[in-house]
Amino acid sequence: MNLYDFPRAPNPRRVKIFACEKNIELELINCDMAKREHKTPEFLRKNPSGKIPVLELDDGRCISESVAICRYLESLEPEPNLFGKDSYESAYIESRNRHIEFELWTQIGISWVNGPIVGSLGIVDQILEAKNMSDKNVRSFYDRLDKEFASAEYVAGNRFSIADITLITAIDFASEMVDLKPQNDLENLARWFSAVSSRSSMKIK
Amino acid sequence: MNLYDFPRAPNPRRVKIFACEKNIELELINCDMAKREHKTPEFLRKNPSGKIPVLELDDGRCISESVAICRYLESLEPEPNLFGKDSYESAYIESRNRHIEFELWTQIGISWVNGPIVGSLGIVDQILEAKNMSDKNVRSFYDRLDKEFASAEYVAGNRFSIADITLITAIDFASEMVDLKPQNDLENLARWFSAVSSRSSMKIK
Repeated sequence: MNLYDFPRAPNPRRVKIFACEKNIELELINCDMAKREHKTPEFLRKNPSGKIPVLELDDGRCISESVAICRYLESLEPEPNLFGKDSYESAYIESRNRHIEFELWTQIGISWVNGPIVGSLGIVDQILEAKNMSDKNVRSFYDRLDKEFASAEYVAGNRFSIADITLITAIDFASEMVDLKPQNDLENLARWFSAVSSRSSMKIK
Repeated sequence: MNLYDFPRAPNPRRVKIFACEKNIELELINCDMAKREHKTPEFLRKNPSGKIPVLELDDGRCISESVAICRYLESLEPEPNLFGKDSYESAYIESRNRHIEFELWTQIGISWVNGPIVGSLGIVDQILEAKNMSDKNVRSFYDRLDKEFASAEYVAGNRFSIADITLITAIDFASEMVDLKPQNDLENLARWFSAVSSRSSMKIK
């Protein structure tokens, strides 16, 4: 299976970490976003959204969206389980993963699109006021996470799941590319971050 | 099972339509968003995100997030299948559902938060420039959908799925509450809308 990838892009990284945790090998194909290869007609046939990652199966069919790709990989290689072992746990992990995606990732995305790196490319109209608000929302979500980690070891309770991969890739991207490192006084969040960062899969960039 | 609901809120509507398609009965509990009942400490124990819908099981455990709730309902009542019958189809439906959520719903949300109804409540700082951009993104996504419906009967290929429920609730909300009805010349989108709207489950508001 081929994975369309680009170094430092956070969504392909989610899938690469997930595959590593499962010990699944993927053939990486570089899709040069700097050259806008993800917007070519050929690539849009693989994913009409023009985004990476895309998983291309051996028969040529393609799957887009990190979480959909990861769920597909889980169906191929069920262990270690990262999506939930029964109906309730699966729903709980999915809800937690979505909290991170819709309330943290989307805000980091707004800060990124309206921030200096994207600004220097001159390809989008930026809105500074929107960035000020999303920066604030990101910091406020970090505060919430710190409170939650006071009584939970991981994002979805007491075991590692896809929701932890979603969160750590968000925080790494926010820290390295958007200048939104978590506040220093959030000790529970720092404890979680340190524990999850020490997994060997997290070395993948 | 109890579903925390509020009339005209689009996300609880997604779950109510899904449950109706499955012939699952849910006890509806009114969570008065106008009185901010979704932000009380008691409700935040059910869903730390302070949002509806929330499904409360008979043993008191709670599930938040529409898609997580629907997947749980599918595990209780597998037929008619709305999430996919094999690994590939499940991944494909999930990817299409996410295209609608991340590329259309998030933009409708920005237009809503920065639009006149929310503005009249005086509870958020609005950014008109952000609304202008999201309005444009919504219209552009409608154009894309129209092209896609030229060769596909439904959002995820040739059969009804959760992705159609996600799209129709988005378009109904955008049309009725955000003044973003699809452009009149998008005939393929109109054909899909008319076919899906005629299902009896869609009468649920």
